[in-house]
Amino acid sequence: MPAFGSAGRVYLVGGGPGDPELLTLRAVRLLQKAEVVVYDHLVSSAVLDFVSSNAERIYAGKRRNEHTMRQEQINGLLVKLARDGKQVVRLKGGDPFIFGRGGEELQALAAQGIGFEVVPGVTAASGVSSYAGIPLTHRDYAQTCLFVTGHLKDGSADLDWHNLVRPAQTVVIYMGLGGLPEICRQMMAHGAPPSRPIAVVQDGSIATQKVVTGTLVDMPEKVLQAGLRSPSLTIIGEVVRLHDSLAWFNPLPTEATAQVCC
Amino acid sequence: MPAFGSAGRVYLVGGGPGDPELLTLRAVRLLQKAEVVVYDHLVSSAVLDFVSSNAERIYAGKRRNEHTMRQEQINGLLVKLARDGKQVVRLKGGDPFIFGRGGEELQALAAQGIGFEVVPGVTAASGVSSYAGIPLTHRDYAQTCLFVTGHLKDGSADLDWHNLVRPAQTVVIYMGLGGLPEICRQMMAHGAPPSRPIAVVQDGSIATQKVVTGTLVDMPEKVLQAGLRSPSLTIIGEVVRLHDSLAWFNPLPTEATAQVCC
Repeated sequence: MPAFGSAGRVYLVGGGPGDPELLTLRAVRLLQKAEVVVYDHLVSSAVLDFVSSNAERIYAGKRRNEHTMRQEQINGLLVKLARDGKQVVRLKGGDPFIFGRGGEELQALAAQGIGFEVVPGVTAASGVSSYAGIPLTHRDYAQTCLFVTGHLKDGSADLDWHNLVRPAQTVVIYMGLGGLPEICRQMMAHGAPPSRPIAVVQDGSIATQKVVTGTLVDMPEKVLQAGLRSPSLTIIGEVVRLHDSLAWFNPLPTEATAQVCC
Repeated sequence: MPAFGSAGRVYLVGGGPGDPELLTLRAVRLLQKAEVVVYDHLVSSAVLDFVSSNAERIYAGKRRNEHTMRQEQINGLLVKLARDGKQVVRLKGGDPFIFGRGGEELQALAAQGIGFEVVPGVTAASGVSSYAGIPLTHRDYAQTCLFVTGHLKDGSADLDWHNLVRPAQTVVIYMGLGGLPEICRQMMAHGAPPSRPIAVVQDGSIATQKVVTGTLVDMPEKVLQAGLRSPSLTIIGEVVRLHDSLAWFNPLPTEATAQVCC
């Protein structure tokens, strides 16, 4: 039992896009001192290496179609741990306030009077664009940037297509690999030119990163050919053209790749 | 003169929203080893404290209406420093690929065959939303998030207002304080309800942070009353309502505030 007065507290922490070097100083300090770390599927193992060996680690899942814990269960777990007096890090991939459901978890804590802090992280869009050499804004190509999530409910396309097809804008789709053929089809049906550039980036910022670029019309086939898998992020817009000249990150060949090559 | 083979290199580094604890591990390492740091106005002094005392520091400016160096001059400077064999950190506030003109600087380097890397940072939108307790997305309020810049050319309003007023979306306006009355007026003129919530955050994530919330109809007056100044960031959308329950960051009172209080 915690001593009287040792109030539990929850730190909602962004774990960044994958490369552990992209953790913030604050995130590292909190991971090192946390008593319990509740983490999501999208948190990389190299990031978890910062967690103290004495700390309890709880996997909260959130693979697509395989929610190890429902959101309500996660909320309840965080409340219980804090009530037990624990210093809890709730660790999410990227930034907790961009498609991280961090707000919902904090609402549950606030309703119970539990103290919390938020540590923003490098969101996946920033991490992936930097490591793929694709600026999200550029005076010549895109003056605005739109973040959407590509998890289509029940396979239906409930995105606001008119919004997505606007020119002079970069669209970033979080986790849209499964819906990619439908996304490309709908964008063209709503007026985007078939030649509009698009990139899909798997494992952005880590050694297994793969970048595939193409156009709305040929991308679904290219992604199949390349065998891309989740987690991935999609960038659509003229800025994708800059990848050819601005790509700089060359991940080390993996063992599998080396075997193919040699 | 550098020894033969000691190629200069430019590291385009995101300095985050202001709190030095939000620097990435990689950013800190590079700041500590850089020979030259070329930095913008929006980089906080606490972030610059990580720069080695042996390093040369060059201020590249970019206050509004007071561009100490033109973009072309900055590009030329980076090329020259790298050609002189220097290890250069090009340090920007927030993330270099979101309204940072990082892409333009890299194009200049790439055209000259100069090596570079990009280190993403916590973008101002993430930093400010986290420290103000305003999630940028939330299943109940906003499924998409749009980043725009509020620097209106020649005082005219060249933003895509139809895009900005859509429901179920959070709009983040980078550096829009000067244009705020026009932004609120145009959004209402294009169909946004006068009651739509809006927040303006000055100095997000540091001790002088101030958050003012209101609606499109009363915000310009409220911001005047509160005496807000740049740098600031504006968040528009239903998620702003969560600030009342999720605000957690209470900056220490400054000396000036303390004198007023006591």
